[in-house]
Amino acid sequence: MSSSDLITRVLANKYSPNGAPSLDNFKVVSAPAPTKDSLKENQVLVRNLYLSVDPYQRGRLSGATNSFVPRYELNEPIYNFGVAVVEAATSTGIAEGDIVAVPNASWETKSVVNAGTLRKLPTGTMDNARDFVTVFGMPSFTAFVGLTTIGKPKAGETILVSSASGAVGQIVVQLAKARGLRVVGVAGSDDKVELVKSIGADAAFNYKTCGTFTEAIKQAAPEGIDIYFDNVGGEFLDATLANINTGARIVSCGMISQYNVKSADEAYGLKNTFNIVTKTATFQGILVGKYYGSPTEDEFMAEVGKLYKEGKLRYRIDETTGLENAPQAVLNLFDGKSFGKSVVKV
Amino acid sequence: MSSSDLITRVLANKYSPNGAPSLDNFKVVSAPAPTKDSLKENQVLVRNLYLSVDPYQRGRLSGATNSFVPRYELNEPIYNFGVAVVEAATSTGIAEGDIVAVPNASWETKSVVNAGTLRKLPTGTMDNARDFVTVFGMPSFTAFVGLTTIGKPKAGETILVSSASGAVGQIVVQLAKARGLRVVGVAGSDDKVELVKSIGADAAFNYKTCGTFTEAIKQAAPEGIDIYFDNVGGEFLDATLANINTGARIVSCGMISQYNVKSADEAYGLKNTFNIVTKTATFQGILVGKYYGSPTEDEFMAEVGKLYKEGKLRYRIDETTGLENAPQAVLNLFDGKSFGKSVVKV
Repeated sequence: MSSSDLITRVLANKYSPNGAPSLDNFKVVSAPAPTKDSLKENQVLVRNLYLSVDPYQRGRLSGATNSFVPRYELNEPIYNFGVAVVEAATSTGIAEGDIVAVPNASWETKSVVNAGTLRKLPTGTMDNARDFVTVFGMPSFTAFVGLTTIGKPKAGETILVSSASGAVGQIVVQLAKARGLRVVGVAGSDDKVELVKSIGADAAFNYKTCGTFTEAIKQAAPEGIDIYFDNVGGEFLDATLANINTGARIVSCGMISQYNVKSADEAYGLKNTFNIVTKTATFQGILVGKYYGSPTEDEFMAEVGKLYKEGKLRYRIDETTGLENAPQAVLNLFDGKSFGKSVVKV
Repeated sequence: MSSSDLITRVLANKYSPNGAPSLDNFKVVSAPAPTKDSLKENQVLVRNLYLSVDPYQRGRLSGATNSFVPRYELNEPIYNFGVAVVEAATSTGIAEGDIVAVPNASWETKSVVNAGTLRKLPTGTMDNARDFVTVFGMPSFTAFVGLTTIGKPKAGETILVSSASGAVGQIVVQLAKARGLRVVGVAGSDDKVELVKSIGADAAFNYKTCGTFTEAIKQAAPEGIDIYFDNVGGEFLDATLANINTGARIVSCGMISQYNVKSADEAYGLKNTFNIVTKTATFQGILVGKYYGSPTEDEFMAEVGKLYKEGKLRYRIDETTGLENAPQAVLNLFDGKSFGKSVVKV
């Protein structure tokens, strides 16, 4: 067997219910490549091109069986949204050379997948295949769904966005700006703050150096917060609750500050939720899955696609090359090292 | 001046930003009665019949100027929703003997009010004037608005109601039951639990004797909570968040457990809000004011009125007689002594 017959796979090696994940959670191995001769009916042999790297994967590594996403199985490849090129297919609708979106792409060089799980991307997209895990990827769609269905933005309102230089935040900042809102972004380094300003935020600050959160928010948005797009939870969310206007909407997308607490007792306790009553506010989690295939997805592709084609949408990408480096890309999400949408080029 | 020319008034005597309120927050005084001779154009002399006593009044006694409701002015009568009979009027639309709803009725025997603030109740309602501060009062309407516009109940779902024997809770329990939900009620004494069961709850428990909240909720609703109608906030809300189903709605009506904390630091910190993300839940404060005069009010009067006329709606009332006893009625709301909708018969 020549080395070209081997593929690289990233397996789940152990679970970490609490605390920060480490390289020990993963195992990178070599394995024989699947061949087209082994395909059964309606199966497709794909070569993965790009894999999305997202914070919610932390939950799959917790080992919990009651989580909102199934856990990764130990000694099996981990998986996430990806884009692949078809090498062989036994299905009538899909042919060699097609570029396809793979909802649960295994983190391995090549995979055999069922044709029914794939979505064919427009022909001629080989050159911009990466766009489908980045600017048109799941985090972007999450930004659009959260902003439009929960945020319900109105021109002239003020929106606060945390993790504003991240995969979701960058899109929220730019869509909100395009819709005429005043945008305040928060990020975890001066470089990130600069990016957030450069993509259109009216104000931005570094939460690591801003001093008291409540005061920093008040200074950046003395008019109060109408929409908070929350990616972090915890103390920053609590401080925002102290600054919301009547009728505020809190779009709850993630709580990355709370993913790696060492025990449930260490979780931050929110003290200002009474403002949800007094300000008749809404605090709602995003359900993105049900909007795939709905008119909302068409609206997303139209609005984001138009801005992108016109050069009015910038999207910073943090690209890692090689599956063997993919575990580190996951870890980088949780210590502030990643900058922009994280993606692995297989 | 004869004693019949004197009225009783309940004034705000001091503010209490934190901690439990006491009789010292109020001052009961006598004052000369207003006369019909003193009426200016479009003024009405009313004799108050019933005054609503509600937990949100605590906020008006805090002295805070940034609260969602204005504070009571010191040495002025406190006020709340009430029903009165007209003794004299200089307005064309209102005449002696009319029964009127008074949105901000001063806690005094008789008042001079502007005609424009009054709403005339159907003629012949003298006998059931109390109904308009009880079964058709603001807390009932709050129950209806919260349940229908945020709770969006569907037959077969499970709703959990805290303060289930209270002014709002009793209505929520019965409306939810009438709409085919499984209803679980929580209250603070065995007597209250019995009432909650007697008005139709499928299960009910005493939070003071149930042990761990999370376990008690799980036992009463092993199928999980689809709607939580929250009147208490704090630790019980946190425990409920640990028991919600995907797509749950948390109707945030009040947080009585948190109104009298001794300082902001003592406020309970909610640890389970990450479930709002993972269960794509909605946690929303009720805005009842904007629904007055809307079709929702007609729907409320139709649905609640029908059940009430048919004898299918029971409403326990905690009636205090005499304005001089009204301050104690307010205090009773916060130590569990009140049982049912609290009202003062003037």
